[in-house]
Amino acid sequence: MNGFEFQCGTKMIFGKDKELCVGEELKKYGASRVLLVYGGSSIKKNGLYDKVIHALKEAGLFFEELPGVVPNPRVSLVRKGVEICREKDIDFLLAVGGGSVIDTCKAMSFGVYYEGDVWDLISGKTRPGEKRIPVADILTLPAAGSEESDSCVISDETIPMKTGFGSPLMRPVFSIMNPELTFTLPPYQTACGCMDIMAHAMERYFTRTPNVEMTDRVTEGILATVIHNLPKALENPRDYDARAEIMLCGTWAQNDMTGCGRQQDWFNHGLEHQISGFYDIAHGAGLAISFPAWMEFLSDKQECIPKLAQMAVRVWKVEMNFENPRETAKEGIKRLRSLIKESGLPLTLSEAGIGTEKFEMIADLMTNKGTHTCGSFYPMNKGDILTLLQMMA
Amino acid sequence: MNGFEFQCGTKMIFGKDKELCVGEELKKYGASRVLLVYGGSSIKKNGLYDKVIHALKEAGLFFEELPGVVPNPRVSLVRKGVEICREKDIDFLLAVGGGSVIDTCKAMSFGVYYEGDVWDLISGKTRPGEKRIPVADILTLPAAGSEESDSCVISDETIPMKTGFGSPLMRPVFSIMNPELTFTLPPYQTACGCMDIMAHAMERYFTRTPNVEMTDRVTEGILATVIHNLPKALENPRDYDARAEIMLCGTWAQNDMTGCGRQQDWFNHGLEHQISGFYDIAHGAGLAISFPAWMEFLSDKQECIPKLAQMAVRVWKVEMNFENPRETAKEGIKRLRSLIKESGLPLTLSEAGIGTEKFEMIADLMTNKGTHTCGSFYPMNKGDILTLLQMMA
Repeated sequence: MNGFEFQCGTKMIFGKDKELCVGEELKKYGASRVLLVYGGSSIKKNGLYDKVIHALKEAGLFFEELPGVVPNPRVSLVRKGVEICREKDIDFLLAVGGGSVIDTCKAMSFGVYYEGDVWDLISGKTRPGEKRIPVADILTLPAAGSEESDSCVISDETIPMKTGFGSPLMRPVFSIMNPELTFTLPPYQTACGCMDIMAHAMERYFTRTPNVEMTDRVTEGILATVIHNLPKALENPRDYDARAEIMLCGTWAQNDMTGCGRQQDWFNHGLEHQISGFYDIAHGAGLAISFPAWMEFLSDKQECIPKLAQMAVRVWKVEMNFENPRETAKEGIKRLRSLIKESGLPLTLSEAGIGTEKFEMIADLMTNKGTHTCGSFYPMNKGDILTLLQMMA
Repeated sequence: MNGFEFQCGTKMIFGKDKELCVGEELKKYGASRVLLVYGGSSIKKNGLYDKVIHALKEAGLFFEELPGVVPNPRVSLVRKGVEICREKDIDFLLAVGGGSVIDTCKAMSFGVYYEGDVWDLISGKTRPGEKRIPVADILTLPAAGSEESDSCVISDETIPMKTGFGSPLMRPVFSIMNPELTFTLPPYQTACGCMDIMAHAMERYFTRTPNVEMTDRVTEGILATVIHNLPKALENPRDYDARAEIMLCGTWAQNDMTGCGRQQDWFNHGLEHQISGFYDIAHGAGLAISFPAWMEFLSDKQECIPKLAQMAVRVWKVEMNFENPRETAKEGIKRLRSLIKESGLPLTLSEAGIGTEKFEMIADLMTNKGTHTCGSFYPMNKGDILTLLQMMA
């Protein structure tokens, strides 16, 4: 186990009807002028919007609204939010939505105190300072884990480029998590969210750091719980307990508790960011295509087989083939593919309507034209990435 | 899963040599006048004391010292600490030790701002206020989990009575956890600590709340990790990785992450508090005697068998006996007893030199003379407790 620092002070307020307390909770944290940030019409359709407005008014809080956050959230809206915060003297950001909405608020929260263009912070040109407007959220989509994480991902649609930044001060101060708010999620979004959660677990699981037993076991627990509850949530979208388990997993998979003391990989997220920079594909769908293919690619590498087999046995309940651990690893990957398929997610780029035309460019971007490698569990060079992309085709 | 709130903002600073940064870390948190609290001579023998003093001086911090904390820490020392804090205008408490030292600091931290006697807070006569002196620690004994927990346990040796109180503000602001500092722990203390960690996991695991899959799995992971690493640490006290796993488990077993969304039991801690009120027995040793006996007692109760069998299968790797789940449960208990025995801990009260003379009094105290029950997984009445005590004899 490596040395590490870990701190996550986000207050998790979990359970039925908890969104009703949002006004009072904001006041406890000293809010007086709130910017309410959300996406499109879904929170208006399901009644959440009205509840939030009522709670803010009841608490006597001043508030402005900023709707319009889209998946792969855009820097243009972040810039707009920064202006509103300055003009209206906003002292608290309330995100109502999923990772895109929360990430938009996170970027804004530091952008307000930065004199230059907020893209400097997002792209890493400038490091974030110590000042930020606090962020809280009402979570409606278990997926990104942004409700407790210390980072955000924003796209500049004009370049195009999708990238992110982080700070220990970026974690939301509180997060309201009511599983009932996810009852109306369409099956495809539910499945994409679960794939994102599993990916966050696996990006940390696949490590070369030895002796990480406790964090491995928590990660295996997250994966097993998602695998068990995703089919239930798809079968019955109003299954409170399945939705609750998935919601809790989403947070714990990404608050970095399971990343403590280990090198993490993140090759698949890097690849997905490139792909979704060029194509309009849901983050979870991109990960559903890349992760099993990447694992398949690694199942031919002797040094990767033990961990792949461990996951197969402990998470996918494959019986260990002691004579041929590679077969065990491959059976685990097969079961992951089955879950993805049964959940209605794509397994190939062509299923997602994506061709081969950008493969060379993607591989170049990820390796700085073949001069670098990507990932740490198995450092992928340009040739590896091209092979993998063909496997994903 | 029940609704819940969870917040744990303690910063975990984990790894080799991390204690060397304690002065700088205290300054980051605004400390200027520190009270250094510790137990006896062990931190002087192993060099930790000198390192801490050096770090405090290097950082230019004023500090006073309060040694003399004993296991089952005493309110008399808490009172003395409160006086020192007031006289010397202390603004930060630094605990160097295990749960007893940290708990002493926690009680002091609220006592300073309470006008009456601190025992009012400890015994629950008065609720703690919103003001407290911040506490940080350098952990030397993985056991109580006080390094992230929101509660403390203090004894009044004159009554005698052992009780505790808590507050969301009671969690330490940071905790320095260097597994190397536990290399010199004697085998008996190592085993007692691990038993305490397992007990914290099990007090939450045994619940009647249905649908608590994710938290069950984390708890099972904690138990499996301790079971795997305790024999290694006993075999080779300088096994860094085994010590590191145990240290991490100790924190996660008691920061209440695994208690989220469920009713908890705590019968065994209640029983142990009574026993150690009358007899001089290490907390972990008391739990080693009571827990397997309690589980044995419950293995005759139809409604308790499924959870006992789940633990046996998932934690102790017992093969499920589908025809007779009770046998599965009993095999799990047998394996717990084997671990306890092999670790050098007692399995009966007589092994610990404790007779039967106080049984009636203990059962009376726990049930208010037979009018109440204790615990929630299986509410234990006075007769149950007497039966259990006979099983423990």
